[in-house]
Amino acid sequence: MSYKNYPMVSRVVFGRGSFNQLGDIIAPKRLNTTAPFIFLVDDVFKGNPLITSRLSLAYNDKLIFVSAKEEPKTSQVDEMVEQIILNHKDRPSGIIGIGGGTVMDLAKAVAILLTNEGEAKDYQGWDIVKNPAIYHVGIPTISGTGAEVSRTTILTGPERKLGINSDFTPFDQVILDPELTVGVPKDQWFYTGMDCFVHCIESLNGTYLNAFSQSYGEKALELCKEIFLEDTLSDEDAQDKLMMASWHGGMSIAYSQVGVAHAMSYGLGYLLGIKHGIGNCIVFEHLDAYYPEGVAMYKAMRKKHNILIPQGICSNLGDDEFDIMIDVALSLEPLWENAIGENWKDIITREKLKALYQKM
Amino acid sequence: MSYKNYPMVSRVVFGRGSFNQLGDIIAPKRLNTTAPFIFLVDDVFKGNPLITSRLSLAYNDKLIFVSAKEEPKTSQVDEMVEQIILNHKDRPSGIIGIGGGTVMDLAKAVAILLTNEGEAKDYQGWDIVKNPAIYHVGIPTISGTGAEVSRTTILTGPERKLGINSDFTPFDQVILDPELTVGVPKDQWFYTGMDCFVHCIESLNGTYLNAFSQSYGEKALELCKEIFLEDTLSDEDAQDKLMMASWHGGMSIAYSQVGVAHAMSYGLGYLLGIKHGIGNCIVFEHLDAYYPEGVAMYKAMRKKHNILIPQGICSNLGDDEFDIMIDVALSLEPLWENAIGENWKDIITREKLKALYQKM
Repeated sequence: MSYKNYPMVSRVVFGRGSFNQLGDIIAPKRLNTTAPFIFLVDDVFKGNPLITSRLSLAYNDKLIFVSAKEEPKTSQVDEMVEQIILNHKDRPSGIIGIGGGTVMDLAKAVAILLTNEGEAKDYQGWDIVKNPAIYHVGIPTISGTGAEVSRTTILTGPERKLGINSDFTPFDQVILDPELTVGVPKDQWFYTGMDCFVHCIESLNGTYLNAFSQSYGEKALELCKEIFLEDTLSDEDAQDKLMMASWHGGMSIAYSQVGVAHAMSYGLGYLLGIKHGIGNCIVFEHLDAYYPEGVAMYKAMRKKHNILIPQGICSNLGDDEFDIMIDVALSLEPLWENAIGENWKDIITREKLKALYQKM
Repeated sequence: MSYKNYPMVSRVVFGRGSFNQLGDIIAPKRLNTTAPFIFLVDDVFKGNPLITSRLSLAYNDKLIFVSAKEEPKTSQVDEMVEQIILNHKDRPSGIIGIGGGTVMDLAKAVAILLTNEGEAKDYQGWDIVKNPAIYHVGIPTISGTGAEVSRTTILTGPERKLGINSDFTPFDQVILDPELTVGVPKDQWFYTGMDCFVHCIESLNGTYLNAFSQSYGEKALELCKEIFLEDTLSDEDAQDKLMMASWHGGMSIAYSQVGVAHAMSYGLGYLLGIKHGIGNCIVFEHLDAYYPEGVAMYKAMRKKHNILIPQGICSNLGDDEFDIMIDVALSLEPLWENAIGENWKDIITREKLKALYQKM
């Protein structure tokens, strides 16, 4: 048996206000005056001084606002890379992604595609990337996805929704500043937080579990319970702790795997463009057969915070459409093997998945 | 306020038997046939096939057995570096440290001194190292020190016991194989495990605490309680979990600081050559004024496992000797500031420390 040799984030800063250190941190990474830093920033921060007034752009540095309304696409990565190449004589000094999972995944993918030929879709899968990415920095502004710490970047391509999993994917630098999460709307806070919660449940209940993943997953789960089920934390402490829960939850799946909820959520994302966080919630509502305790806990959290989960999103779909979602979900073999075991193909049938999707 | 930008271990493998992957992992790091890998191995493994039969030395690779009976010294680092330079035409491809904290710290220091001029003592302190170290790998064979994950290497120099703290200190690769810890004698298992426990207590009760360190420290503490106070774990699970406790405990102090026990233990180490793990225990017995809950828990653990702690080690010391230990302890200002607060100099007097040392 061979174990993963996991590539870690190279450097990490944690602290309220640590975003102010960004300029000092990246300055030594500037290759020359014509090699810009490209800042990819979630467009919810357009006109919001929390981020923009604190970025110091020099020389040919470029700020690009990115919409996170939709899940990130391989075509979007290709366009960004093309624009960067066309607009700048030199290869950038670095890519700085400031936002949620969508923006961080785009930053990782762009950094990879700037040094690897072809299109983003060519690299969806495991260990296809050949060349090291350019320097890339991840700065989460919402907590839960674990994108800040993982070796993947999940993209919707023409044929599938799948990550670029590679040793060159993880960030060279992460800045964890919980203050950046203050303005997150409550429903979004919940959906993205549940991504972390689901990571823990899927990792802790998976057949790939090991003491490494277990220790991270248990801590992240404990933090989620404290944040989403108890009333003991100040707002600041809850922000700090959710940022750490996301980090530990990410490390937990990094060294194991996700499971049923993620596989099925990818189906929803691919066909219907459902965002990952809310998609996980939609699916998780119906997974009591697979994760009974986790689903009960999730429902208690959802009720406590009065969060509405869309219903009936699959009610008008035809058989062809169910087939597409089922194909996407079933193609993610490691997720099923982790969730169910080596014999998962005997247990997980297309009919079962269709029946589940029909409830959503 | 400025926050630490912490350099992480670049890659980590975890798993029982993962030591078998060492050859495959380092092979691509070989610079050329005359640039050897140097294996520093704890000499308890002399003649023990657990390690030696599984190392495949090629070309000019060299296996050096290292005694961990004494704490690592700057002079020892200098001698090793000199021997390596004299015996090999080319700079090594890498240093692989296989052992406990002593061997891992030596491996880190040798890797640094091979690319930085002068003597090891010149680099004791914070951020003095100028050049990146050569590739270095850490493989713990006993759990607790956190040396596998930290940015320091604690050395006894001619003037002080102090770490080489630098961004170039952390390992490029760590292999966490709990099977390597099977033969550890019980008392040593306890002393080194208590290093982790004390890291948690000092970090969680320190003024430098933050949500990052807290989450790691709490998890490591929880694992320590499970391992040392409960009877629910199999031997294998206890080995796995103690290895993870060491890792998380190391990350907890990495992003905060240790405290009273470490400061005073360094005094014992410097003057009397007391090894760090047992030194922490000797000191911790008497720190109920500073860490009341932690000391009570420690004593319950020590009793449960019938561990004897040396007593009276300071009973024959003269005033000059107490002064030396007190000087070493007080020189570690960040540790006191973390433990007591900014006004620590008003509270921690030489008399108090002497009275404590006299009890040991």
